[in-house]
Amino acid sequence: MPPTRWTVLVLHGPNLNLLGEREPAIYGRATLAEIDAAAARAGAARGAAVESFQSNHEGALIDRLHAARGAVDGVVINAGGLTHTSVALLDAIRACGLPTVECHLSHPAAREPFRRRSRIAPACLGAVSGFGADSYVLALQGLLAHLEARRVGSEPGTTP
Amino acid sequence: MPPTRWTVLVLHGPNLNLLGEREPAIYGRATLAEIDAAAARAGAARGAAVESFQSNHEGALIDRLHAARGAVDGVVINAGGLTHTSVALLDAIRACGLPTVECHLSHPAAREPFRRRSRIAPACLGAVSGFGADSYVLALQGLLAHLEARRVGSEPGTTP
Amino acid sequence: MPPTRWTVLVLHGPNLNLLGEREPAIYGRATLAEIDAAAARAGAARGAAVESFQSNHEGALIDRLHAARGAVDGVVINAGGLTHTSVALLDAIRACGLPTVECHLSHPAAREPFRRRSRIAPACLGAVSGFGADSYVLALQGLLAHLEARRVGSEPGTTP
Amino acid sequence: MPPTRWTVLVLHGPNLNLLGEREPAIYGRATLAEIDAAAARAGAARGAAVESFQSNHEGALIDRLHAARGAVDGVVINAGGLTHTSVALLDAIRACGLPTVECHLSHPAAREPFRRRSRIAPACLGAVSGFGADSYVLALQGLLAHLEARRVGSEPGTTP
Amino acid sequence: MPPTRWTVLVLHGPNLNLLGEREPAIYGRATLAEIDAAAARAGAARGAAVESFQSNHEGALIDRLHAARGAVDGVVINAGGLTHTSVALLDAIRACGLPTVECHLSHPAAREPFRRRSRIAPACLGAVSGFGADSYVLALQGLLAHLEARRVGSEPGTTP
Amino acid sequence: MPPTRWTVLVLHGPNLNLLGEREPAIYGRATLAEIDAAAARAGAARGAAVESFQSNHEGALIDRLHAARGAVDGVVINAGGLTHTSVALLDAIRACGLPTVECHLSHPAAREPFRRRSRIAPACLGAVSGFGADSYVLALQGLLAHLEARRVGSEPGTTP
Amino acid sequence: MPPTRWTVLVLHGPNLNLLGEREPAIYGRATLAEIDAAAARAGAARGAAVESFQSNHEGALIDRLHAARGAVDGVVINAGGLTHTSVALLDAIRACGLPTVECHLSHPAAREPFRRRSRIAPACLGAVSGFGADSYVLALQGLLAHLEARRVGSEPGTTP
Amino acid sequence: MPPTRWTVLVLHGPNLNLLGEREPAIYGRATLAEIDAAAARAGAARGAAVESFQSNHEGALIDRLHAARGAVDGVVINAGGLTHTSVALLDAIRACGLPTVECHLSHPAAREPFRRRSRIAPACLGAVSGFGADSYVLALQGLLAHLEARRVGSEPGTTP
Amino acid sequence: MPPTRWTVLVLHGPNLNLLGEREPAIYGRATLAEIDAAAARAGAARGAAVESFQSNHEGALIDRLHAARGAVDGVVINAGGLTHTSVALLDAIRACGLPTVECHLSHPAAREPFRRRSRIAPACLGAVSGFGADSYVLALQGLLAHLEARRVGSEPGTTP
Amino acid sequence: MPPTRWTVLVLHGPNLNLLGEREPAIYGRATLAEIDAAAARAGAARGAAVESFQSNHEGALIDRLHAARGAVDGVVINAGGLTHTSVALLDAIRACGLPTVECHLSHPAAREPFRRRSRIAPACLGAVSGFGADSYVLALQGLLAHLEARRVGSEPGTTP
Amino acid sequence: MPPTRWTVLVLHGPNLNLLGEREPAIYGRATLAEIDAAAARAGAARGAAVESFQSNHEGALIDRLHAARGAVDGVVINAGGLTHTSVALLDAIRACGLPTVECHLSHPAAREPFRRRSRIAPACLGAVSGFGADSYVLALQGLLAHLEARRVGSEPGTTP
Amino acid sequence: MPPTRWTVLVLHGPNLNLLGEREPAIYGRATLAEIDAAAARAGAARGAAVESFQSNHEGALIDRLHAARGAVDGVVINAGGLTHTSVALLDAIRACGLPTVECHLSHPAAREPFRRRSRIAPACLGAVSGFGADSYVLALQGLLAHLEARRVGSEPGTTP
Repeated sequence: MPPTRWTVLVLHGPNLNLLGEREPAIYGRATLAEIDAAAARAGAARGAAVESFQSNHEGALIDRLHAARGAVDGVVINAGGLTHTSVALLDAIRACGLPTVECHLSHPAAREPFRRRSRIAPACLGAVSGFGADSYVLALQGLLAHLEARRVGSEPGTTP
Repeated sequence: MPPTRWTVLVLHGPNLNLLGEREPAIYGRATLAEIDAAAARAGAARGAAVESFQSNHEGALIDRLHAARGAVDGVVINAGGLTHTSVALLDAIRACGLPTVECHLSHPAAREPFRRRSRIAPACLGAVSGFGADSYVLALQGLLAHLEARRVGSEPGTTP
Repeated sequence: MPPTRWTVLVLHGPNLNLLGEREPAIYGRATLAEIDAAAARAGAARGAAVESFQSNHEGALIDRLHAARGAVDGVVINAGGLTHTSVALLDAIRACGLPTVECHLSHPAAREPFRRRSRIAPACLGAVSGFGADSYVLALQGLLAHLEARRVGSEPGTTP
Repeated sequence: MPPTRWTVLVLHGPNLNLLGEREPAIYGRATLAEIDAAAARAGAARGAAVESFQSNHEGALIDRLHAARGAVDGVVINAGGLTHTSVALLDAIRACGLPTVECHLSHPAAREPFRRRSRIAPACLGAVSGFGADSYVLALQGLLAHLEARRVGSEPGTTP
Repeated sequence: MPPTRWTVLVLHGPNLNLLGEREPAIYGRATLAEIDAAAARAGAARGAAVESFQSNHEGALIDRLHAARGAVDGVVINAGGLTHTSVALLDAIRACGLPTVECHLSHPAAREPFRRRSRIAPACLGAVSGFGADSYVLALQGLLAHLEARRVGSEPGTTP
Repeated sequence: MPPTRWTVLVLHGPNLNLLGEREPAIYGRATLAEIDAAAARAGAARGAAVESFQSNHEGALIDRLHAARGAVDGVVINAGGLTHTSVALLDAIRACGLPTVECHLSHPAAREPFRRRSRIAPACLGAVSGFGADSYVLALQGLLAHLEARRVGSEPGTTP
Repeated sequence: MPPTRWTVLVLHGPNLNLLGEREPAIYGRATLAEIDAAAARAGAARGAAVESFQSNHEGALIDRLHAARGAVDGVVINAGGLTHTSVALLDAIRACGLPTVECHLSHPAAREPFRRRSRIAPACLGAVSGFGADSYVLALQGLLAHLEARRVGSEPGTTP
Repeated sequence: MPPTRWTVLVLHGPNLNLLGEREPAIYGRATLAEIDAAAARAGAARGAAVESFQSNHEGALIDRLHAARGAVDGVVINAGGLTHTSVALLDAIRACGLPTVECHLSHPAAREPFRRRSRIAPACLGAVSGFGADSYVLALQGLLAHLEARRVGSEPGTTP
Repeated sequence: MPPTRWTVLVLHGPNLNLLGEREPAIYGRATLAEIDAAAARAGAARGAAVESFQSNHEGALIDRLHAARGAVDGVVINAGGLTHTSVALLDAIRACGLPTVECHLSHPAAREPFRRRSRIAPACLGAVSGFGADSYVLALQGLLAHLEARRVGSEPGTTP
Repeated sequence: MPPTRWTVLVLHGPNLNLLGEREPAIYGRATLAEIDAAAARAGAARGAAVESFQSNHEGALIDRLHAARGAVDGVVINAGGLTHTSVALLDAIRACGLPTVECHLSHPAAREPFRRRSRIAPACLGAVSGFGADSYVLALQGLLAHLEARRVGSEPGTTP
Repeated sequence: MPPTRWTVLVLHGPNLNLLGEREPAIYGRATLAEIDAAAARAGAARGAAVESFQSNHEGALIDRLHAARGAVDGVVINAGGLTHTSVALLDAIRACGLPTVECHLSHPAAREPFRRRSRIAPACLGAVSGFGADSYVLALQGLLAHLEARRVGSEPGTTP
Repeated sequence: MPPTRWTVLVLHGPNLNLLGEREPAIYGRATLAEIDAAAARAGAARGAAVESFQSNHEGALIDRLHAARGAVDGVVINAGGLTHTSVALLDAIRACGLPTVECHLSHPAAREPFRRRSRIAPACLGAVSGFGADSYVLALQGLLAHLEARRVGSEPGTTP
């Protein structure tokens, strides 16, 4: 187990509290608690403490993002349906200035047309979608690689 | 080193042969050979042999995809500029019926408007973008987790 | 008075707490309490208990919908201005899987162009609009007929 | 049975003569005759005589609407496919000046995009959709409540 | 110091609590407290008491607007990112019937295309944008001139 | 009366010469001369000399803007109907490089759709609209605060 | 009275049979019979016999147009609501090859956006709109001048 | 001559009665009678009786389609200008559930933009266009091959 | 010759000074002087003095319209290419408050798509197009009939 | 067997080499070799030699088209996914000047919206779609009838 | 120096009088006088006299174009911001019938989206953009080659 | 003959190999060899060696561009139909980082709407179109002037 070098906030938007129960054909059968546990394990294995927060309230998600400023090193966010509509969330991510990765359980680009546009994408450094609960773990890994690379002044992707 | 259970094809589209030299501010400094090596290492560590192929020709990419039918277990594809324009590539991915993951070095959703639409997304199971060379490694991991889960009849994301 | 066979949730979105005071030319003069009472009476007459909930918070409406899973048999929702913008609410209705009827006091299709698109419609079984406070009563009746028909395995509309 | 105070015209547009036979998964299994009978019963129970008319001809529907001026108190119309295309029908409803309610067996807002726009909506006082044959009965009830409220100078929705 | 003739509510939407810290190149370096103080001073100098409220929650802003009915004479609102998306806020401003002025620190019409459309503009009497913290003071002045003119039955703008 | 530190040009576009006579319900009853006098008074009170110019000719407005280069410190412009159509005026404002504030008597964002887009906005530092003749005075104040802040190297909005 | 040199067909589309009764604020108070009489008088004064036909059926209008081939010299058509939707009528006018003038009682370009597009315009030589019943007389005059000019091999508009 | 195994309805929409006379540069010189005779001959040679019907009335075409249910095995339809506008015809084809082939004398995709969209295409199994009168014969052949293949449980296109 | 009861201004926009020389296939061979003479004769025959003005300058046309306020009874305007682009001209017509008729030599609705939208139409009472030089005469007649009808308090179109 | 009078090129675009294996529910079970054989047989029966060529490369298809100039009498092309995107192919068909017929196994107009637009249609004389492998045979027949008619100076479609 | 065979008009639109001072990063540092001198030299070297005219007034540019009819052999026009908005200028170029070449200092197609559409392009024979002041010289050369080729009845581009 | 200071690549896209034979009314009668010879002569006269390459394969054009990196000083490209569709080519030009000029024989902005958008324009420094074969020569001259100016540190356009 490496020492804890990073703290990461995992944000879950509206309806994700129902994971495992809601439309399993689309969203899979893992519960939110299981996803949080998997993310915590994956973080720990790479020296990162992971905090999780879910809310159905856009305002609560923004409040939580604000509180994260200065307290965490990066954010993984699955904004749920707000992904496609919330300029306020876009502004919040920009206002916090934290490296942020967008993630989705399903693959929105392959669903209804209105899910093709992510309002928050322009404020994010990257995105992972379509791998069910694994999307979170992969997003977390990508974020940590980004933080590592930034720390050592190198670029991501070429570390052995 | 686990035994080799899977074979994966990594497809690189137009202009990716120039990686490391082309617009490093956007695409990073890793070369294509380094990326392929990193993907091979990451695959090997998870029991997957990785084959790579790059072409600036849409037709050559389609030919290579066809040849992969029955020969590989899944595909990671960075279709470059063809991502946004090629219906023929979309059809080719569908025609092959292989689990396919779209990946990008940069984060297209945060760039020019015409990069927001992926023509091939509807035929892909997921996507990873914005992590530079790491996008490939994460996409490969996501694909392998998908293959594993399918093999054992479980769902991805909850494996310890 | 028939025995109570059903429980129905009536959800009121933003600004509906002001009913009776707000733009009566458009929305009529009945207050929300009067509407809730009329819905309760209409429900009771058909064997349904009616619970009501109003909030100006999208998140609170989603929370309430989640709480209704397993606890009620159907939902009548007037999402107010969120009707036209909230993908999160659409997802919430789908996530709950309850038969849901959209209703409006005014007739949005005859107002500003942006009121023509209902974001939540694809998750609803039907809609009633334009009858002022009666829209709720009619929506409730339609929902109950649907529940009855489903229960007896027949189709709605042909019961004597 | 209350005395007959109102006369209402129920207009059925193209293809509704096939009801009960045509795509029952979408439109239900009740025939047009059964729907007309149910509307007549529902009207009688509320003091309204109900006349019905079906045609596959836009012009015949307009002719029938014109003939209704001065002869009926209100109209329930299911314009079928003309709903989405006919400006002439919109003009006819306006020209007649009768309180008119739009109704649909299915829920057009949840179907193909071109069914989202109702050309006739701006001339209607309200709409009911998605309840199969019950849509007609609910539309009729809404129309009669509107007529009653107008007659006694009060507003709809608060009558006991 | 003139006597207090007016009470005005200044509403701040999402992310404005971070003012002074967030993207100072766009939003300036004044904090929200400093802006509220400047607005209070400017109000006092013109006979107006100024109340301020900030929230990242759309619902809380609507609740606060409702509470202002009958309690204040006018509203200055910077709805932040909700400006461009919230029909519920538009409806709330209309429902309250108070003279309302929209204001922005930056000049949205000169930024991303999606910031060009203000959802709430049709319910506002005017707007001020682009003057940093001064936008609030100018909006307040404009509102007070409007209230004065209405009070004396004259038109704004010609007072000496 | 403070000493004159600034010179400001107030530009009026097409049809504004008719102010006071033209559609007073929309544009108010103050004449252009009265507006110019009010602007001059407001300027003098803040140490600014104000020059005014009106023309119905796009070309004459551009000529006047060109002549202002090097001769004035800032511009307040109400481009009338040209606001929504003139790329040449946008280019002229950019070419002159003077701090420019857009202003309108009415609130264009609340009128016809084609008035929602200001062609010149991207070249302006801010905008004021909807306060009748007061729009000019507020725009002038905003411009002068901007000039002051720039002069003393501080930011606008926090001066006592 | 000049000798009869021309025969002209005046075609009236849906709802025009109600003229004089329908929305007089928009369409005026003249009846269709009065308009036909005025057109006949105006035609007779210029050597033209005028035939009139009205139908609410698109098909009947097309049938009548077909019957006019070889039998009349030109057509004045007010297609009512079909103006904006009927490709079949456009094709019919082209198929007949008769000089045809579009006319409207009201001024569609100043009404709802969907009335701005005339489907039949590309097949017409000109149009008159907005003069109430006089639109027909002016359209007839324009058509006859066109026929005269064509007959004498000169151009319209310069005859004394 | 094979025995008659199939009955096919050939439906002609508005203006096709003028074939041979109308815009021959676009539609050719064959008359409708000649086309019907050619279709009958082509049908007879493949064991199909062919019935023809033309109308300029959308409603009459729908009536005829309805009458064909249970009486014919398939339909060839050239809906003329209605092709691009009639949702009612689309619904009628779906309601009848008969294999239907769309055909056109000219090649609409190469003409005006509004001819590019066929409203009825989603209900048809295929389409033939651009071969003048031969389009009908080819459409008929395609339809009969489809019926044959369906009958013998094989696929079309591989019969010797 | 009737006494002169009315004065009418005929306004010609850009490029109309070239009439008779410019693209005669589209605009005809009559010169502007001939058109003005024809309009004067037609006006005189109906008791109207006709003034004409042509300019290639939008501003000059607006100036001339302003000068016409109080001096003429109505306006006939062919705004040429400005028809499709000038909001300033739309505002000018509204500001003057004079009954105004739009006219065109050609039939813009049958030409390039960008000629289908008239910016000034919403401020005009009617329009005439497609009759070459006769368009002016017909527009003038329509305007005079409108003025007459308004004068005698009756409606246009039914005078003998 | 008639003598060989014509030579026809059948061009198959991307992914058609997989026919019979790829998505048989959409594209049928005939292989490309079987389709080519069927086309050759159908050609031979009508006096035409048929050459076939398939490629997944847009450039190779264009090269083949160029080589066909002067060597064949007409072309049948199924451009696969390139149908909807390739302007270069459109230009190639025009450049070759050969009568060309577009064909499709499935019915693109009834599938995803982006398949509704054929880029190459404006250069083709006609199209056949939706008949599976038979589409090729019908397209070939249509092309040969066109060539025959052109040869004898008559029109297609009326030959016995 | 060749004899003077041609006369060419170089037209400069709004804001080009500021060249050399205005946004040099985009438009370069050459003044308009220098550009005119370079064009004159380049013209003289090829036997062409060059006249220049600049105005910020659309009307003045149109007047100058009209005056050029019969007096010059061709036109080079940089219409500045009017390029993207002026239908009147398009009409003027068409009305003059002179060979006209559009030119731009910068490369509009690579700037803001609204600069991508040239209103005047359809009336021009060609265009040159992006070479700073050299754009004029190249445009002039292209125009003269066109005039030469037309004179000798050959085609441009193959002269030695 | 000046010494050779520059090497320039001239790239020809799809169908340009047919020049001189293909649609001469649009593209002229010069062959590609003649154009290449003219470009070579024009280059030589200005100290530039010119290499030419044509392909109908997008991929081959990209390969050739890549090969040009470090080997040539600039590129003139006529991408033919790929101009309007190829993001891969846009990326290739950007990836190479060579000064590139777009050129066209015809004037795409004056042709079909889909030819108005150049995908590659944002990566090019300028463009020349509409001069037939001369477009290449002018594009080459513009490119060389750009290279010269960059070399001597001055700006293009003012060299004698």
